[in-house]
Amino acid sequence: MYKRKMLIDTDTASDDAVAILMAHRYPDIEPLAVTVVSGNMRVEDGSRNARYTIELCGAQTPVYLGCERPMLREPVHAYWYHGSDGMGGMNYPEPKLRAANGHAIEALIENIRAHENDVILVTLGPLTNVASALLRAPEIAKMVSRCIVMGGAANVVGNVTPAAEYNIWCDPEAARIVFRSGMNLEMVGWEAGRGAAALTDQEIAAVYAFNTPFAKFAMECNAHALQLAKHWQGDPGMTLHDPTAMAVALDPSISKRRGKYRVDVETRGELTRGMTVVDERHTVGTQAYFTDEWAVRQPNVLTHHELDAAKWKALLYQCLR
Amino acid sequence: MYKRKMLIDTDTASDDAVAILMAHRYPDIEPLAVTVVSGNMRVEDGSRNARYTIELCGAQTPVYLGCERPMLREPVHAYWYHGSDGMGGMNYPEPKLRAANGHAIEALIENIRAHENDVILVTLGPLTNVASALLRAPEIAKMVSRCIVMGGAANVVGNVTPAAEYNIWCDPEAARIVFRSGMNLEMVGWEAGRGAAALTDQEIAAVYAFNTPFAKFAMECNAHALQLAKHWQGDPGMTLHDPTAMAVALDPSISKRRGKYRVDVETRGELTRGMTVVDERHTVGTQAYFTDEWAVRQPNVLTHHELDAAKWKALLYQCLR
Amino acid sequence: MYKRKMLIDTDTASDDAVAILMAHRYPDIEPLAVTVVSGNMRVEDGSRNARYTIELCGAQTPVYLGCERPMLREPVHAYWYHGSDGMGGMNYPEPKLRAANGHAIEALIENIRAHENDVILVTLGPLTNVASALLRAPEIAKMVSRCIVMGGAANVVGNVTPAAEYNIWCDPEAARIVFRSGMNLEMVGWEAGRGAAALTDQEIAAVYAFNTPFAKFAMECNAHALQLAKHWQGDPGMTLHDPTAMAVALDPSISKRRGKYRVDVETRGELTRGMTVVDERHTVGTQAYFTDEWAVRQPNVLTHHELDAAKWKALLYQCLR
Amino acid sequence: MYKRKMLIDTDTASDDAVAILMAHRYPDIEPLAVTVVSGNMRVEDGSRNARYTIELCGAQTPVYLGCERPMLREPVHAYWYHGSDGMGGMNYPEPKLRAANGHAIEALIENIRAHENDVILVTLGPLTNVASALLRAPEIAKMVSRCIVMGGAANVVGNVTPAAEYNIWCDPEAARIVFRSGMNLEMVGWEAGRGAAALTDQEIAAVYAFNTPFAKFAMECNAHALQLAKHWQGDPGMTLHDPTAMAVALDPSISKRRGKYRVDVETRGELTRGMTVVDERHTVGTQAYFTDEWAVRQPNVLTHHELDAAKWKALLYQCLR
Repeated sequence: MYKRKMLIDTDTASDDAVAILMAHRYPDIEPLAVTVVSGNMRVEDGSRNARYTIELCGAQTPVYLGCERPMLREPVHAYWYHGSDGMGGMNYPEPKLRAANGHAIEALIENIRAHENDVILVTLGPLTNVASALLRAPEIAKMVSRCIVMGGAANVVGNVTPAAEYNIWCDPEAARIVFRSGMNLEMVGWEAGRGAAALTDQEIAAVYAFNTPFAKFAMECNAHALQLAKHWQGDPGMTLHDPTAMAVALDPSISKRRGKYRVDVETRGELTRGMTVVDERHTVGTQAYFTDEWAVRQPNVLTHHELDAAKWKALLYQCLR
Repeated sequence: MYKRKMLIDTDTASDDAVAILMAHRYPDIEPLAVTVVSGNMRVEDGSRNARYTIELCGAQTPVYLGCERPMLREPVHAYWYHGSDGMGGMNYPEPKLRAANGHAIEALIENIRAHENDVILVTLGPLTNVASALLRAPEIAKMVSRCIVMGGAANVVGNVTPAAEYNIWCDPEAARIVFRSGMNLEMVGWEAGRGAAALTDQEIAAVYAFNTPFAKFAMECNAHALQLAKHWQGDPGMTLHDPTAMAVALDPSISKRRGKYRVDVETRGELTRGMTVVDERHTVGTQAYFTDEWAVRQPNVLTHHELDAAKWKALLYQCLR
Repeated sequence: MYKRKMLIDTDTASDDAVAILMAHRYPDIEPLAVTVVSGNMRVEDGSRNARYTIELCGAQTPVYLGCERPMLREPVHAYWYHGSDGMGGMNYPEPKLRAANGHAIEALIENIRAHENDVILVTLGPLTNVASALLRAPEIAKMVSRCIVMGGAANVVGNVTPAAEYNIWCDPEAARIVFRSGMNLEMVGWEAGRGAAALTDQEIAAVYAFNTPFAKFAMECNAHALQLAKHWQGDPGMTLHDPTAMAVALDPSISKRRGKYRVDVETRGELTRGMTVVDERHTVGTQAYFTDEWAVRQPNVLTHHELDAAKWKALLYQCLR
Repeated sequence: MYKRKMLIDTDTASDDAVAILMAHRYPDIEPLAVTVVSGNMRVEDGSRNARYTIELCGAQTPVYLGCERPMLREPVHAYWYHGSDGMGGMNYPEPKLRAANGHAIEALIENIRAHENDVILVTLGPLTNVASALLRAPEIAKMVSRCIVMGGAANVVGNVTPAAEYNIWCDPEAARIVFRSGMNLEMVGWEAGRGAAALTDQEIAAVYAFNTPFAKFAMECNAHALQLAKHWQGDPGMTLHDPTAMAVALDPSISKRRGKYRVDVETRGELTRGMTVVDERHTVGTQAYFTDEWAVRQPNVLTHHELDAAKWKALLYQCLR
């Protein structure tokens, strides 16, 4: 069977782990490499969590350490959300799989060049690794068949600030580089994982009842985040943001409402750092004097607003069974 | 009958005119003054349009000229939207009512002082006049019983840019001064006038059938804007943004969904000039390191997200009959 | 004798006091009013210090209270530099002269209108009052014969930050409004009062030896600031920044090196808040792509780089004798 | 003889060429590699100019192509200053020396690692290559013995804007990364090459009289820039900015006035893009409320204000004879 090649760039905490697991359990996907970036976790923690997950799937996908901090900003992690180990405090044993030699930046560049036009890049964390790879080898932008970004908020309230989602907020300059790079981008904002896309208590119980190590792992390592989803985010259940992006990568048909717009990243605002500004009404340029600072002149990002919740959950369950 | 005192600050174009008309036709309102600011129109045009409207209502409310340009930014008008006269190109005759002597800034200050705690301020344009009054007499912030601002966009797409609504975009520094002034603020964003709140072709026809000068005036001067609402904004009919704010001022019960949040105005963003950043999830300060630049520490603006469309239209019709 | 009319806008601390004294003691000057702004001092303290100084001169010049804080920024005072009373901790008795009725903004507007083209405006503090007056009555910009601003730093290191001088740093938006207003501006940066313009210990002793109340007052109320000038600023003696600006107002010939340049104020920089950016090499527009954000297109500020130290001190001594 | 190892990062135009020549002709220097970055020239032009210069010196130093554009900004070249080929329009023949395989980023990283603590890095262009290397391998910051940056302006007027020097202006984010990296930095601002450091017509004639190919080359390829130095910059002769930085690298004793300060780069200003903000008075933190946005807490850059003109010229002449 032909398998689609995939690269996963991740700051592996509990929901990244489920996304990584999905990629390894989905029938027609061949994960080429997992590259780890500073974000939710320090890179060493992210690497350990990624390797544990891969090992659980019985795979050997190489895991590369990447950038230890954002390009220009101070690192801000999210242990408070994902638990002291990023895995809900489960304190899984150290995996036997070792980190691969080499740096995430080169791993991205080499794998993309080696599989030109036949590689899906899924990003689950801040875009520091990807932006740094683009600085070194800008031509890879056009070699990626699709790049699905978990990140941003498309004209809806953000999570870490009123205006911004964490991954983009964390390294807005990196995001700007990626969003302006010419890559074939798709954005799955944090809103796509909210509301009906969240797993209710009943659904969580049903997943546990699959009685597989994958189901147990996915639910238990996100139990800590579930509490924050309910009480800090105000969501009805377990929100799995990185898995929703992975699901769109695996099966684009789970996207229910989407559009291709000019999207750029605010890097200078006082209150809007890292906001993904989405020209949903195609206003830019229609009355040029309002928008003359826009460097992005053509629609550059396929933005997924909303998923088909039933299809998304079915896809998730398929990977956890 | 006791009448509530009202001050209307306006850059009078076609929808402002309907709002001014509503205030003059509503039973328990006494308009104290209309103050004109640069915005949609140059102040001279706004003044003429306001005076024409007041005269049509058989009133003598004094109309004061105010600031001719934003505090720090270049003026950008919206004749393209409202027509060459701001009144849909109807070219109404010059009103007999003359502009009052004195400046809008002093008119605002003196009227607010004279009616301490018994005056509703409704703003329909950029906030230059109000902010300038606050620089001169900051104590008036606490003397206004309610200040209803038509402006902003609460975590939804903007009109003139993807991130911002015209009135706030136009003079973001003035808006920031007002939003931080301690006034009892209510915000009616442009989204409140969209969708179901827009007047359909049938409803417009029904209004014409009232066969009053008020109905005819309100519909015909907005006929030009109607085309833009349909084809540029993407709305199903005539959006009457300033009248929706006036309606909330006249009868707060038409507000269907609202909340009191920290709201501040972005003044430095490259892509987010004049965005009203609305802390709808009450995130600010919960994880302080994400939001430490917020000067607004307490909920300061009652934000009206959505109106009861039927009630709003009934109120409008009542004023036009 | 014909006397030149003068308005003095001031955040009266110890060096402002000397400048006010100079204006009152100089032969051909008629001070019309002193307007007080928040800056070094809270306005109440500034008003008291101004009134004490005027009383010492045997005059009755009206003193008006003005804006209590910058337009958009939080107030930051300089009691640490000028002493707990702003007068070196001399704790002078309360003056008998009362603050005039009315606000500084109107005092500025009315006096400028009353003496169109025959009034020198000297600003010794942040430009909040002047900018607010310009918002209210922009036409006064062209009615002032000269406006001498003590403030800024022309391509030299700043005092409160590496890039900026206190008065402009304090309210950069107000400064930008004034610098772009079309007024006939002259800028005396803080550097003009440094180095050879500072009073050495011998010169201070010589001034005391004048044995006049003016000499004693001028030296003793600046004794606290002298220590900071030496140990914080790194200057060889008592720097009298506001008096140097007043001296240029009184006698332009004390300016030794000057030029008329495009000058604008940085309001958005992270490290350069309130910097006066001085196009000393007339670069703006010569290679347009480097400078396309410049709104100031023509030389707008006569910038005094350096004074004739001997002439400046002679003028000062004349006023203190 | 022990030779000091040197890496030269350059956007090779006419004055870079002289600096490269100096490094190759100085007795105790071993140039390890020349890495080319976008700046004055497109990288292809810079590479050709660097290879021509090296060939002229009879050397084989590898020349690596680097980043083709700034990290986040649009490229802006300076052909107008250096001539259509960057070499004063001399149109030198294509060198036989070919560009080395590999990218400047890796060349920098590998050479620095291979010569840990024994390599001088001299940067003559925008800092894109160096910053990108630091993103990939932050540890190299501490492995460079000295990094001499030609760039910036220390509390003096800039060249391309009133506030900034070209190299830093061009890629301010890259400069910020380098300035905050912990490298042992020295900055030779553009002012160090002005005034007495410029070569007068007599001095230029004297150099031609050396009658060496090096002297002829250095003077003729800068003849175009000489006109701009005189008529656009306002300097008395040929300013050789990159060679002055190289001279400080070769012989630190030519620095006449210098200091180690906190230095950071403005990336957000409207008028101050790429300004090197130099805390020359050690003000940051002394009154913390003025400077609380400073991330650079300790002196990080040895800043050379002024060279000993005679010594600098003697060193230059030695290399050209």
